[in-house]
Amino acid sequence: MTKQLKIGIIGMGRIGKLHGNNLAFSVPNSKIEAVADLFLNDEMRAWAQGLGVQKIYNNPAQIFSDPAIEAVFICSSSEAHADLIIQAAAAKKHIFCEKPIHTDADQIRKALNAVEKAGVKLQVGFVRRFDHNHKKVRDVVASGQMGAPHIVKVTSRDPEPQSIEYVSTSGGIFLDMMIHDFDMVRYLSGSEVTEVTAIGAIKIDERIREFSDVDTAIVLLKFENGAIGVIDNSRAARYGYDQRVEVHCDKGCVQDYNDLIDTTIISTKDGVRSERPKWFFLERYNQAFIAEAQEFTAAVLNNTEPSVTGIDGLMPVLIAKAAQKSLDEGRTVKLTEFA
Amino acid sequence: MTKQLKIGIIGMGRIGKLHGNNLAFSVPNSKIEAVADLFLNDEMRAWAQGLGVQKIYNNPAQIFSDPAIEAVFICSSSEAHADLIIQAAAAKKHIFCEKPIHTDADQIRKALNAVEKAGVKLQVGFVRRFDHNHKKVRDVVASGQMGAPHIVKVTSRDPEPQSIEYVSTSGGIFLDMMIHDFDMVRYLSGSEVTEVTAIGAIKIDERIREFSDVDTAIVLLKFENGAIGVIDNSRAARYGYDQRVEVHCDKGCVQDYNDLIDTTIISTKDGVRSERPKWFFLERYNQAFIAEAQEFTAAVLNNTEPSVTGIDGLMPVLIAKAAQKSLDEGRTVKLTEFA
Amino acid sequence: MTKQLKIGIIGMGRIGKLHGNNLAFSVPNSKIEAVADLFLNDEMRAWAQGLGVQKIYNNPAQIFSDPAIEAVFICSSSEAHADLIIQAAAAKKHIFCEKPIHTDADQIRKALNAVEKAGVKLQVGFVRRFDHNHKKVRDVVASGQMGAPHIVKVTSRDPEPQSIEYVSTSGGIFLDMMIHDFDMVRYLSGSEVTEVTAIGAIKIDERIREFSDVDTAIVLLKFENGAIGVIDNSRAARYGYDQRVEVHCDKGCVQDYNDLIDTTIISTKDGVRSERPKWFFLERYNQAFIAEAQEFTAAVLNNTEPSVTGIDGLMPVLIAKAAQKSLDEGRTVKLTEFA
Amino acid sequence: MTKQLKIGIIGMGRIGKLHGNNLAFSVPNSKIEAVADLFLNDEMRAWAQGLGVQKIYNNPAQIFSDPAIEAVFICSSSEAHADLIIQAAAAKKHIFCEKPIHTDADQIRKALNAVEKAGVKLQVGFVRRFDHNHKKVRDVVASGQMGAPHIVKVTSRDPEPQSIEYVSTSGGIFLDMMIHDFDMVRYLSGSEVTEVTAIGAIKIDERIREFSDVDTAIVLLKFENGAIGVIDNSRAARYGYDQRVEVHCDKGCVQDYNDLIDTTIISTKDGVRSERPKWFFLERYNQAFIAEAQEFTAAVLNNTEPSVTGIDGLMPVLIAKAAQKSLDEGRTVKLTEFA
Repeated sequence: MTKQLKIGIIGMGRIGKLHGNNLAFSVPNSKIEAVADLFLNDEMRAWAQGLGVQKIYNNPAQIFSDPAIEAVFICSSSEAHADLIIQAAAAKKHIFCEKPIHTDADQIRKALNAVEKAGVKLQVGFVRRFDHNHKKVRDVVASGQMGAPHIVKVTSRDPEPQSIEYVSTSGGIFLDMMIHDFDMVRYLSGSEVTEVTAIGAIKIDERIREFSDVDTAIVLLKFENGAIGVIDNSRAARYGYDQRVEVHCDKGCVQDYNDLIDTTIISTKDGVRSERPKWFFLERYNQAFIAEAQEFTAAVLNNTEPSVTGIDGLMPVLIAKAAQKSLDEGRTVKLTEFA
Repeated sequence: MTKQLKIGIIGMGRIGKLHGNNLAFSVPNSKIEAVADLFLNDEMRAWAQGLGVQKIYNNPAQIFSDPAIEAVFICSSSEAHADLIIQAAAAKKHIFCEKPIHTDADQIRKALNAVEKAGVKLQVGFVRRFDHNHKKVRDVVASGQMGAPHIVKVTSRDPEPQSIEYVSTSGGIFLDMMIHDFDMVRYLSGSEVTEVTAIGAIKIDERIREFSDVDTAIVLLKFENGAIGVIDNSRAARYGYDQRVEVHCDKGCVQDYNDLIDTTIISTKDGVRSERPKWFFLERYNQAFIAEAQEFTAAVLNNTEPSVTGIDGLMPVLIAKAAQKSLDEGRTVKLTEFA
Repeated sequence: MTKQLKIGIIGMGRIGKLHGNNLAFSVPNSKIEAVADLFLNDEMRAWAQGLGVQKIYNNPAQIFSDPAIEAVFICSSSEAHADLIIQAAAAKKHIFCEKPIHTDADQIRKALNAVEKAGVKLQVGFVRRFDHNHKKVRDVVASGQMGAPHIVKVTSRDPEPQSIEYVSTSGGIFLDMMIHDFDMVRYLSGSEVTEVTAIGAIKIDERIREFSDVDTAIVLLKFENGAIGVIDNSRAARYGYDQRVEVHCDKGCVQDYNDLIDTTIISTKDGVRSERPKWFFLERYNQAFIAEAQEFTAAVLNNTEPSVTGIDGLMPVLIAKAAQKSLDEGRTVKLTEFA
Repeated sequence: MTKQLKIGIIGMGRIGKLHGNNLAFSVPNSKIEAVADLFLNDEMRAWAQGLGVQKIYNNPAQIFSDPAIEAVFICSSSEAHADLIIQAAAAKKHIFCEKPIHTDADQIRKALNAVEKAGVKLQVGFVRRFDHNHKKVRDVVASGQMGAPHIVKVTSRDPEPQSIEYVSTSGGIFLDMMIHDFDMVRYLSGSEVTEVTAIGAIKIDERIREFSDVDTAIVLLKFENGAIGVIDNSRAARYGYDQRVEVHCDKGCVQDYNDLIDTTIISTKDGVRSERPKWFFLERYNQAFIAEAQEFTAAVLNNTEPSVTGIDGLMPVLIAKAAQKSLDEGRTVKLTEFA
């Protein structure tokens, strides 16, 4: 049997279990050595045992102090990410961390410094980069065969609104939802955002007004390489998870469309019906979650650089903050204001 | 034979001939009674004779003074439109006028006042409203079946750049090209634009920089009804005329795709090839040009209101000016600044 | 004005008027000199006058004896086609004849002999060859870029069943409906059919059983060039006019899809709806009818050969008869049985 | 941990390993208790150990005599399937058997009798029934919402020809390749085939002529319920694995299209390129192989009937033999000739 990377998973909520299952069933050269959750319960314990994990902890510290563990998956609640990165780096563990690292840029910088000083690898969970469609668009653009990018467009709409409880503590649409798209436009354009203008609307649930948030938003972007871009977000597409990207270049356009539930078509006198997009991120990015865990595992085992690193964890947060400021102040905001 | 509307065509350039041919071959209840062009030449004369037109003038005034003529098609160069409208109204002729009425809002208002006072009909040539695809999207939205609109998106890209001579006198991308899209978002949303933010880039031809113009642009929009929107334009799609609209509403999304040259698909080991979008406006909006001429003719004969009237000639110009100002000043511009 | 071909139209039923309107509005180098119908009525007279036709006859003989007329469109009822061809040829008129020439092969051969002896041109109305989609498929195959054809497939389904009165005198599904597809497979494959096997079913209207007809049929084909093929027909698709062709070749597959009413897509939680195929032949083959009239006119004026000639009028009838025999006798039938 | 079905895998060729990997990684309520292969080698041993299997045998008999084993996956070479079924049934093991059970109908019947007498479950590996697209088409048809089926069409083309060695011992295109499609039409129509007519051609590799085989074939079908159908096969699509089905019914048509490698589209002046279909069965039916193993496991654990049983193993072989006879004798063949 080939060498297996020994991994500790921190946090056994939905995303922690998702990564755990993928590591167990789809990343043969990984082994879940331990799991930890501050709020460990019987259900988590049963899940871990079902995967054959022996070490089940109620404190991440037990993972950091375990010398058998080479790498950690940080899947705890977001506010703890930066601290856990710092602790993991101190313990010389390689780190896969779910996005966002933190909502405060200084906290992110501190975490990235710790990672750099420790010389461990850090991969941030921007899973969409591993989607077969988006990755293909980016690869075509990056190959240069289409010439320079002119316009980068991302449409990203959730199928149904999150609960108001979720939204109220989410940090707002830009930090919680569009942050993925800010990563995506950097990925697609191969360039940094310099300037944003955001507009928003409350079209789905009036209750979010009291949190100074919006549920529908469009953001204009300028890039260092001279390209321009736009992202639109909605918290409620209703028809599924609408995830499309488009890059218009010197020689034409590269774009992708949604993956559908299936390819069937029903034609009657009442019209032609085809299937909806896959429902949400678990369905749409299922293979991408596996691919990112495989890349992280391979990067550590082969001592190569992951394709999503610390700076990729920082920049989308800065863009999100600029977008929020633009929305709040009704003006265009330059990224240099956040330098 | 049913009653035929007697029409005089002013201007025998490309667009004048286009309307002339459509009236002659596809609008049975119209009759081209006369044509006029200040720069009348043999080629125009031969074209008109080929359609069986007897009265061929070198001055529009001869059309206005001809009592047999009930309506005019103003297809002259843009700067003359407003004056010709005023003269036509004074002569009690019903008016179809190519867009734009004028690039100066006050001139437009003067023309509209003349039309109103004369009690004649005025239809402005925003031909895309008559496109079968865009019209269907608008009809579905307007029916209310999808609920309120949230996001209105328009992609509009020309196949190849116009000549630099053309661009240098065009009035800029917003007044020359995106003006159609400003009309389209009003049509799709059923609401007025209140605020715009424009960004642009020069990605196709550096020579336009000296005209303070751009060849690639995106404009953010806010609407009175609370919806938000975005338009992207490129002077050089390269793959054809890219004309797509999308309206995301309470219950989901209504959108259209490009009409293709044909529906064939060639599959080989090198990939799957399908046809490009129809090449440019003559191909894509061919039927729409016919439909707008039919509507104008029917509106005059039946004394009904055309679906594109004077206010539709004014508003896109104001939005275009706001967009230009936004681009020039790097800030969001409210339409009230142009009241 | 350029030279115009002077045409006489024989028969002013639906198809005669269709051709008349196309000649009048879309074939500038043609002129309808006269029309004739044995059952001339006021409505036909009004239609012809509306087109500005002066000579309105109640007997085709008046057309044949008119020296001003250079060519005829034979649009009478099917059983008269062959006789009218013979009379037209005798009068040295060039001939466009609606399909089928006759249901009896000997009658067709007699008509073709008359045409050949007279040295006039004959184009048969297999309009689908002029469809932009099918023509493109054929052109790609004929270019040789895909290598030799292996499999030729045609799907052809009418939207709604014809009346039982129509069907009872139609000559059966093979002579009335699939005859177009027999022409299409010859056109696509560039080869002659050598052998057919037909199966059929009555799935739509039991009343056609008494006419020994079927409303649903599939026919297997062998071609001289070694390719094989299949056609399926239904009298009632319900969702529109389903007209698709596919040719699988050495290097891959060339196919086309239906033209849709429009390109709009409506996505909601209940699914994704797009438009149906264009409803029937008047909608789908609208441009193709114009193109065939243009080709015939040009072929006569330029003294070139039309792309659909007498042999193309004969072969599909022979194939249809072989298919009917195959269905009746439950066996494979070689075309040599009809030599 | 929930109850796990203890499985023995017989045969560790490509398909045996495929099922083994799926059971290990994607069927949590299964456990590979043992593996066996008459030609056991180091590579197979390493693969099995990699999955944590302890019992690695060089004789299937060792699996049958192991009381811990509840079910077997028969993945050996085809000619041994029937015998192994009989031995498994005698040992009271439930059976998943790859297709075909045997190429001789009497051998199949003997195996099915043994299964019935033993009272064990048998599922035959017609994996395409578990494809998300085909299954959806069948479910829509089976629901009755479209009315009765009229026409059943299956297109099935391999990407590249198999080696001539493979083809020479494959039993011919009908038993080796189209057998899947014979199962599919039974599945889609919900009815038995009563009559077939086959035509074929050698268009890809002349060497198969000496084996009296063809590489391109079309088969016409009649069904007990009055529907008619057609299947086309090619050994060399070149553009990927072309797998499409279509059922035309009273109220319209239900069909599916190929799953593509990704959804990207590249538009340039040279045309529009999209991705090819997934390459071959491992890519296209990847999820379907998992689903069939899950269904078999669940059926045994829950004591329910699998959806593909012994009769489904017999009927396609009879149809394939009838098709071969039809091709050989150039005539329509009734299934009753094989009763």
